[in-house]
Formats: sequence, C-alpha cells, structure tokens
Amino acid sequence: MEKQIFTYDLIKKEGQARAGVFHTPHGDLLTPVFAPVGTQATVKAVTPAQLEEIGASLVLSNTYHLYLRPGADLVAEMGGLHEFMRWPHPMLTDSGGFQVFSLADTRQVDEEGVTFKSHIDGSTHRFTPESSIQIQEKLGADIIMAFDECADPNNQAYIRDSMRRTHAWAERCLRAKSRPDQALFGIVQGGISPELRRQSAEFIASLGFPGHAIGGLSVGETKAEMNAMLEVVNDFLPQEKPRYLMGVGSPEDLINGILRGVDIFDCVLPTRLARHAAAFTHDGRINLMNASYAHDHGPIDPQCDCYTCRTFTRGYLRHLIVSKEMLAATLISIHNIRFLVSLVQTARQAILEDRYTDFAAGFLARYQPRAKKG
Amino acid sequence: MEKQIFTYDLIKKEGQARAGVFHTPHGDLLTPVFAPVGTQATVKAVTPAQLEEIGASLVLSNTYHLYLRPGADLVAEMGGLHEFMRWPHPMLTDSGGFQVFSLADTRQVDEEGVTFKSHIDGSTHRFTPESSIQIQEKLGADIIMAFDECADPNNQAYIRDSMRRTHAWAERCLRAKSRPDQALFGIVQGGISPELRRQSAEFIASLGFPGHAIGGLSVGETKAEMNAMLEVVNDFLPQEKPRYLMGVGSPEDLINGILRGVDIFDCVLPTRLARHAAAFTHDGRINLMNASYAHDHGPIDPQCDCYTCRTFTRGYLRHLIVSKEMLAATLISIHNIRFLVSLVQTARQAILEDRYTDFAAGFLARYQPRAKKG
Repeated sequence: MEKQIFTYDLIKKEGQARAGVFHTPHGDLLTPVFAPVGTQATVKAVTPAQLEEIGASLVLSNTYHLYLRPGADLVAEMGGLHEFMRWPHPMLTDSGGFQVFSLADTRQVDEEGVTFKSHIDGSTHRFTPESSIQIQEKLGADIIMAFDECADPNNQAYIRDSMRRTHAWAERCLRAKSRPDQALFGIVQGGISPELRRQSAEFIASLGFPGHAIGGLSVGETKAEMNAMLEVVNDFLPQEKPRYLMGVGSPEDLINGILRGVDIFDCVLPTRLARHAAAFTHDGRINLMNASYAHDHGPIDPQCDCYTCRTFTRGYLRHLIVSKEMLAATLISIHNIRFLVSLVQTARQAILEDRYTDFAAGFLARYQPRAKKG
Repeated sequence: MEKQIFTYDLIKKEGQARAGVFHTPHGDLLTPVFAPVGTQATVKAVTPAQLEEIGASLVLSNTYHLYLRPGADLVAEMGGLHEFMRWPHPMLTDSGGFQVFSLADTRQVDEEGVTFKSHIDGSTHRFTPESSIQIQEKLGADIIMAFDECADPNNQAYIRDSMRRTHAWAERCLRAKSRPDQALFGIVQGGISPELRRQSAEFIASLGFPGHAIGGLSVGETKAEMNAMLEVVNDFLPQEKPRYLMGVGSPEDLINGILRGVDIFDCVLPTRLARHAAAFTHDGRINLMNASYAHDHGPIDPQCDCYTCRTFTRGYLRHLIVSKEMLAATLISIHNIRFLVSLVQTARQAILEDRYTDFAAGFLARYQPRAKKG
C-alpha cells in the first residue's frame, strides 16, 4: 500500500487520545510527536546528528526569524531549509504571525496584514497572508502554517474581531499556496471563549486543510483554560486529520494535550530551560546550578537513556554551569529534548496498548512542574 | 610483547622528525600528537563523543583552573579527571605555573613557590612544587608536569635566575611525586638564550624524567627564535623519551616543531579561533564572518573529512555566526581540532614513509597563517 503524502492514519484511539502516522515528503511522523524548535535554522547548541540520536523526527523553524536573517531568498538559493540546516527529516515552519505579535518592536494590524519593526535593527517590514505563504514556500518546510493573529486572550472584544480576520487570512493563505509538496495547516483561534473557539474550529475545519493547528494558547491563560479550549475544539476538528497545539511543550501540557486529542507539539522550553541550567526528570524539574548537586555522582535522571544521562554526572554538569561552559547548554538540551521526545513516544505506546489514561494520571500525580529545591 | 607504561618507542626518524608511540595507562599515543585543551575539564563546546569522532587521542586540562574551580578534592572524589569529564583516553595536566604567570591578578615568586590572586574572585592562593604535584595527583592525568616559572623571554637577567629556580623546583617535584600510574615530565626553560636553553636541557635531561617538555616558548618571541631554541634543546634531550612543546598549536608551528624533533603539542588555538569564526583550511586561515561566504555552498575545506565539512556549507556557518548561535562554535571547533589532529597524523605518516621534509616544505609554502580576505 503506497503512502500518500499528507494523509493521516489514525491507528488507535483511547478516549480522545490518538496514536497515528502523518505522512510527509521527508518521512513519516509517528504521532503524538514533540518537535524541538530551531528558531534560526538551528536547534540551539545541538547538532542535527545529536537530534537524530535523540530520536527527534520533526523540527520547527521560525519564519519571522529566517525572513529577517538570513532571508528567505538566501535559504531558497541554498536549497531550502532542509538542505540549509541539514535536517533531512520532516520540518515545520510557523507563519511569522506569533513572533510579529510577541517579538517585533512595534506592529500595526490592518485587514490586509501587519506592518512591524524588526527586533534586530528596527527596520520596517510587512507580512500579509500572501507574503507569509510566499516566504514559507521559499523556506520549503513540509508543514507550513496559515498567517494568523495571536491576540491577548483576555481582551474578549478584540479577540472576536481578530478571529474574524484570522479566518479571512486563512482563506487567503489557501488561495496563495502553490507548492504541492507542502501541507498548509489552518489555525484555530478564539482566545479563551468556548463559543469563539467552537466557531473558529468549525470554520477552519470547513476549509479543507490537511491538518489543523490550535493557536493562541499557552500565552497567559491558565492551564485549566487551555485544557477547556482543547476540549471544545476537539469535538469540531475532523478525526482524519492531525491536530497541532502550537508552542506548547511542558511535560504536563504534553500529557494533558494528548489526553485531549492533540497529535503535534512544539516548544522552545527544553532548550531554553537548558540554557538556564534547568532539567526535566521523571518526577519533576530540577535546577542543576543548585549547590547540592556539586558532589552528585548520579545522572540527571536515572530513567533517561540520552547521551548526557548515559555519560555525565550531575556534579560534572553543575561544574560546567558554574564555570559558564557552553557544553552545559548542549548536554542539558540533549537531555531535555530527549525527555520530551521519549515522554511522547511512551505516551504513544500507552495509547496503542489502551493504558494511556492510567499512564497520564500516574505521570501527572508524580511530576512536579516547578523546580525542586534540589 | 607487553607494553610498559610510559615507555616511548621511536619507530622512525627522518632528519630530526620522529614517529613513535608513547604508552600510557589510558592507551597508546601515536606521536607526533596534537592535544586539544579542555581548560575547565571540557574542550569548549565539544562533547567527548565528538572528540572521539575527531580522532583526538590526548586532551590537556589546566591545573590552575581546576584547582580554583571545582577544586582538586572534588575532582578526586568524583573519580578523577578522566571519570569526571568522561574522557577515557590519555590526559595531561599542566602544573599551573604558566597560568599563575599569565592569568592570576597578582603574583609574588620566592624560592619556595608562588603566591597569587585568583582571576575569578581575587582570593589569595599559593602554589609550590609540592602542592602542584599533590593537586595533579588528585586530578589523576596520565602525564603531569613539573612546576616551573615561565618568565619574560626578553628579560635575560631574570631568565637566568628563573631557570635556576625552575631546576630546583623540578627536583622537588620528582621527590614529591608518589603515584606510579602518572608520568612526570620535566620542563626545559631558558628563554631565548641558546646557552641557557642548552644548560636547561642538559640539567633537566639528567634528572631521569620519563618525558621532557619545552616551556617558555610561543610567549612573545619570534618564530625564528622559537625554532632556534627547539634546535638547541633537540641535541640535548634523550631520543628515547618524548618531547612536548607546551602551548604551541598553529599549523605552521606544528609542522616546524615536528621538523625539529617535537612529539607532543597542545594549544587552545583551534577552539579559541572557532569562537571568533576563524577556521583553518589547507591553504590558510579564513574568517567565516566575511560577507563573501553568505552564499557559499562549499564546506570550510573540501579536503577535510570532519563532521562539519561533510555536512555544512560555509553559507550556513556564516548564518550561525551572524545570528550568534552557539552551534557555530561547536561546528568550527570540531573542524579546527580535526584539522590539527589530521595534520599531525598526516605528518606522522609522511615520517614513516621518509617524505616528511618534502611534505613540510610543501605545507609551509602553501599555508597562509594570516586570515585571508575571503
């Protein structure tokens, strides 16, 4: 049976949790899947060879950053993003929408698009749905995203207007898209209003995208609000297409997201935490800067199979951190990414074996999201 | 035939150039050999797994730095330096002498030792020949160094006094040494005076060390002066023991050193240059920050077999540098270390095949030490 690209095979469902396969031109994604983020065409401090050893299958890169530096034309001239950063496996680019709203120095939204100033040099730029797609086509990721507006979830009046604009932009993105080897995902918005989320999920689902993203979450709302929104949209997104929860990646959020039907996650958290000496363990987050680890002969997490945990002690890692050695960021990033990749792989196996609900409950009961005193 | 540790087998000589094997408890060193430097128990930005892939066989670490942070007792408690940094192959520690003179905030030399202030926090410390050996025994490298004074080569009057003190300290180091699984090397000093260098080489050689180091070079003298000093000491150091030229590591210095009988080199140059975007190539040094590389599809050096050159373009590396991504330091360090390790391996092969003189002349005629415009 030949695999068709951008088809999603739902293999097993337990409650709302799903195990599946999403077929892309650069390989199959076994879902649920966690994607580390390579903001500027590199997962910070980690080589592609290390990412492969970690078992990462999907890498996200940011359109906003690559558009500003080195520019989409240069990436295209160098053979596209896969070739440029030498990641021959599936890739995803976002639309630039989120960064325009979170990073750019100033921004002005109109019906046609967004004018903003670069956070690098203050120069003025403009993104429209059409230009975002054009840039993403030059970058060449397997999965690309519709240009959307990510608005403050607590500004209910604005959210409604913003959602309407995001819907219009989604239609324009579909029309602008031309490459057959890229899957364009539509993005559900609607803030923390169940009614708006329902409307958005229904509308976006009606446009026939090969996959759907849930945007505008993990941006300041509570965990309970995020989970509630996932439950709302879950009912309206088609089962035969993958669902991607954008920018979400703490261990507990992954477990809760999978429980509510999410297939794809991405987040800078594992690499950002690593650069601040924080590491995931099976029962909670720790900070390796803590003096109590100076004499510690054990690995970050005795249950982890990553290069860092197979090789180095907490005492050595603390020494690297205290000595401001770059290797600390590399080694803890390897661990943190492996932790999330492995967590999601374990979740998938549990779904296949019909024991995900128990697995999730056990994990959530044990895992301490906040850093322990150490 | 059982190998005896710390014996040196001279396999082949061509002119003064030597190919040999030095046996250590953590493996055989095929000499000539270049050792990357892991100042604070890590070769900056490079994992031990990457160092193994590079083909590095010997790593140097700095007693001064490790004494200050994390402390020799902690390293000993963690199983020693090999175990602490997970480098299971041969290691060398210097005596701390050079760093006391080059890094410490202030220093006061007396006949017994040196009192100095830490460059980290200004606290006062004291090294003596005995304490340097004691620290190096706690660290546990295979090759350890006598405590010496590295004086300004242009201060002839001071150099004579300093050399006399270094000789007395060498004898005290020999008496202080207790571990049978470490080889203590004596250090020849004498500045840029042929007569003092001769005296120092004769005296140090008379003490019966298993290996000899040549210190106080590459510290401000000219290349011609360094080469002249190597030629002087070469005649007085015994052929049946290895010679180590401390802190020297530019490509042209390695070629010139081997030509004058040197077996072991170490230098921070490949990793320090990498953090400043400079890379070795077969015909000279380049700086990858240069705008001319932005669109370059080629590797750093088409003749190099390292991971970086097999995988990434100059255009991508330049993007990482411009974007201030840590991965740039890792990838260029891998290349620069491999370049020197490979250069020295190639030199060894040339000696074995009796064509080193031609190889050296060809390399020195082609290689441009200063960064090209690119």
